[in-house]
Amino acid sequence: MSSLTMNSNNPVLTMDKINNNLVKMEYAVRGPIPTRAVELIEELKNGAEKPFDEVIRANIGDCHMMGETPITFIRQVLSASLFPKTALADPKLPNDVKERIQLLLSSCGGQSVGAYSDSAGVEIIRRHVAEYIEQRDGCPSDWRNIILTSGASEGVKLMFTLINSASTDNIQTGVMVPIPQYPLYSATCSELGMYLISYYLDEENEWALDIAELQRALDESKSKCKPKAIVVINPGNPTGAVLTKENIAQIIRFARDNNLLIIADEVYQHNIWKEGAQFYSFKKIMKEIDIRLELVSLMSASKGYMGECGLRGGYMEIDNFEPDVKAVLFKQISARLCSALIGQFAIDCVVRPPQQGEPSYELHQKEKETVLASLKGRAELTTRTLNSLPGVRSNPVAGAMYAFPRIQIPNKAVEEAEKLGQKPDFFYCKQLLEETGICLVPGSGFGQIPGTYHFRTTILPQPELFSRMMNKLQKFHLKFLEQYK
Amino acid sequence: MSSLTMNSNNPVLTMDKINNNLVKMEYAVRGPIPTRAVELIEELKNGAEKPFDEVIRANIGDCHMMGETPITFIRQVLSASLFPKTALADPKLPNDVKERIQLLLSSCGGQSVGAYSDSAGVEIIRRHVAEYIEQRDGCPSDWRNIILTSGASEGVKLMFTLINSASTDNIQTGVMVPIPQYPLYSATCSELGMYLISYYLDEENEWALDIAELQRALDESKSKCKPKAIVVINPGNPTGAVLTKENIAQIIRFARDNNLLIIADEVYQHNIWKEGAQFYSFKKIMKEIDIRLELVSLMSASKGYMGECGLRGGYMEIDNFEPDVKAVLFKQISARLCSALIGQFAIDCVVRPPQQGEPSYELHQKEKETVLASLKGRAELTTRTLNSLPGVRSNPVAGAMYAFPRIQIPNKAVEEAEKLGQKPDFFYCKQLLEETGICLVPGSGFGQIPGTYHFRTTILPQPELFSRMMNKLQKFHLKFLEQYK
Repeated sequence: MSSLTMNSNNPVLTMDKINNNLVKMEYAVRGPIPTRAVELIEELKNGAEKPFDEVIRANIGDCHMMGETPITFIRQVLSASLFPKTALADPKLPNDVKERIQLLLSSCGGQSVGAYSDSAGVEIIRRHVAEYIEQRDGCPSDWRNIILTSGASEGVKLMFTLINSASTDNIQTGVMVPIPQYPLYSATCSELGMYLISYYLDEENEWALDIAELQRALDESKSKCKPKAIVVINPGNPTGAVLTKENIAQIIRFARDNNLLIIADEVYQHNIWKEGAQFYSFKKIMKEIDIRLELVSLMSASKGYMGECGLRGGYMEIDNFEPDVKAVLFKQISARLCSALIGQFAIDCVVRPPQQGEPSYELHQKEKETVLASLKGRAELTTRTLNSLPGVRSNPVAGAMYAFPRIQIPNKAVEEAEKLGQKPDFFYCKQLLEETGICLVPGSGFGQIPGTYHFRTTILPQPELFSRMMNKLQKFHLKFLEQYK
Repeated sequence: MSSLTMNSNNPVLTMDKINNNLVKMEYAVRGPIPTRAVELIEELKNGAEKPFDEVIRANIGDCHMMGETPITFIRQVLSASLFPKTALADPKLPNDVKERIQLLLSSCGGQSVGAYSDSAGVEIIRRHVAEYIEQRDGCPSDWRNIILTSGASEGVKLMFTLINSASTDNIQTGVMVPIPQYPLYSATCSELGMYLISYYLDEENEWALDIAELQRALDESKSKCKPKAIVVINPGNPTGAVLTKENIAQIIRFARDNNLLIIADEVYQHNIWKEGAQFYSFKKIMKEIDIRLELVSLMSASKGYMGECGLRGGYMEIDNFEPDVKAVLFKQISARLCSALIGQFAIDCVVRPPQQGEPSYELHQKEKETVLASLKGRAELTTRTLNSLPGVRSNPVAGAMYAFPRIQIPNKAVEEAEKLGQKPDFFYCKQLLEETGICLVPGSGFGQIPGTYHFRTTILPQPELFSRMMNKLQKFHLKFLEQYK
């Protein structure tokens, strides 16, 4: 290890000497296809000849990147909170914006967004989150159970880290994760050396959770790990599914019967498109069926109608935790000091939008409804277009911001992919990108039943661009089928 | 594990079933004393009778909380970036602010701070960071080695996670950390199950690093862990020391001879107070003595003259990493998507302040110099006051924002503390808090040579309050000595 003759050509960090969990980790949403898309943008900018003149990035749930307009009230509050003196003197700034920043800043150290907050976040914002949940679900929420996070991703990592007991019992801690899944979950499992218990969502049944399948996955895992939690993403990423009340109740009973913590990723709770679909929180249904389990619910300012990904604001609510365990969680978050105050303020605006009678109310309602109506239109167009393609079948985009259609890939294309050492769905998406500039993520990045192929597309490109994309995708798909038939 | 008879009274998460690394972890900066201080503030607010009428929070490096005024240019840029249309039309907003937000936003997805950036941060900001380093050190910096982080804390955690190879080799990965240290390092070691190799700073020599002591610590650790890195905090937290060029060169040679990665926490690089002291980056000295090692340098928007803790902006530069290891690091950061854009923009303002001739230049210079001069005055006052107290000896506060004086605690007080199950320095700080409202952190939270006692105080309360605090501390200290003599 150490020797006086060692010199600077002897690196400390080599692939065999670093964290192998990270070496093995995969994260497809920012994998080789999106990376290639960024290169193509650069190449186009430098005048390269391509069969397309624009790259369409439908690979990531990034609303603003795809042209969504920020919500005025949110931006006014955030902008003003950074320069309150000028803002408060500005006659054009609505009074409810001024009142909001006064209220929030009075709860900050030195009345500044430049001060650290408590590790769990600014108290008044945590209180507002709890009020929002109470109103949404009609059951009590304790603000001391709210932790403001740097987006939902941080919440997931905090929680996975907390439940990972491998260092004590030398057995991998298992977490049940849906397949297909948002790859944050598998990436976090990899990083922390935890065991991913994959359960397949039921594609034939609009991606619902099938309890027999949950039981199969859990039973099979028991020789390999100590199962401790189940992750449910509702509305679904990448599936676009919205769970029914009955399905949620089944899952809760399953968790109770199998002694599992429920981690409910509910970041798309504002994004409901399908007629008749409705968002039910796990908290609400738990209350309704009178079962009391440990529950974590994750929320974010990055999705919904606000789409403020770059601000990194989110919250998690923990329910029914043992007090000493909760104390450990609070100690855990203290070492990262706090999440970004501007992200915290954004969450405040989300959970406490302007109310009827307040000066910002009408504009806020209009902006919110416009965004949501437009997304709804694109969700419907996506479902329609995808199902019109031969060899493609998509469940309705009932919620969230994605479709995850199943595609039949001709044998010749599968063989061609294998020759190149590529997965067939990767091959399809790579061809699509190189020929049309459309960037999607191959289904293999999210997981799928072996032998089936999918891709994930967002519904986020703005309407005109989105129609263009759907047309291009259609043409490509038909050409691809023809080429490899 | 699972049974149909289990019910909701059977918690999944109990102290013996969660991550024991977190159970064991300590984080003193937000430990019981600061927690008690917050309670006292509340009690005072509710009219409780106390021997003081204000709580003085000198426990945390939170400039804005302690009344420091934000820098206008930074706040103008950030505020405007959230509402660019209005800002660009505002005749009162300086042109260089407008140019800056146009430049930065043009590098953001959808020209919005609401879009995700690349995982490593907005490209133009990374380029600006590299330019800043080049100018500071007079040696090249590659923008592709810059990662924008959510404060320096995130950088530390990312790097510790990367080098932690225990899952492969079943031996704890060791990191050399100074004692006294900023507890983020020990907390991160605990959380990740890494081995903390404590090396004592040389209090008799203005907290310099003594190479023989480094060697002792390293040699003793080798039977227990695989040493892989050395952390150096310069300027020092909690010591307030500034390392000499010669000392830095010695440390670099030590790291080379012992095959260690250097993690240089250089977040206080703008905070130099002592006549003759100067900040030298490890990068610069490495270049000067012509040694090429793997190096990580951490920087933050939270300290310096800006003190923007709540925005969570920071960067790390990695030097001389193997390309495949660097690729793993970049994959690692991709799963957390990106750091907060507002924090990234803050870093841009720090590394690229207004230049001579630009409209914001003069005000910016004035504000910066005012803050730094005021801090310098408080640094000097701190050194003077502390050394005037019997039984207290403090090295000069040469840099950073802290003093870490050694205090003689009378035997009777030590015995009294032991009776209460408290460490003597904790006992001292607790008494101080309850009697005067001054909140400091006991030395045991940072580590100290056994049998010696210290506390850490920040120099951040504004001048008038600071003088008041020094007076109160003086009185308390004399009374304490009298009481336990």
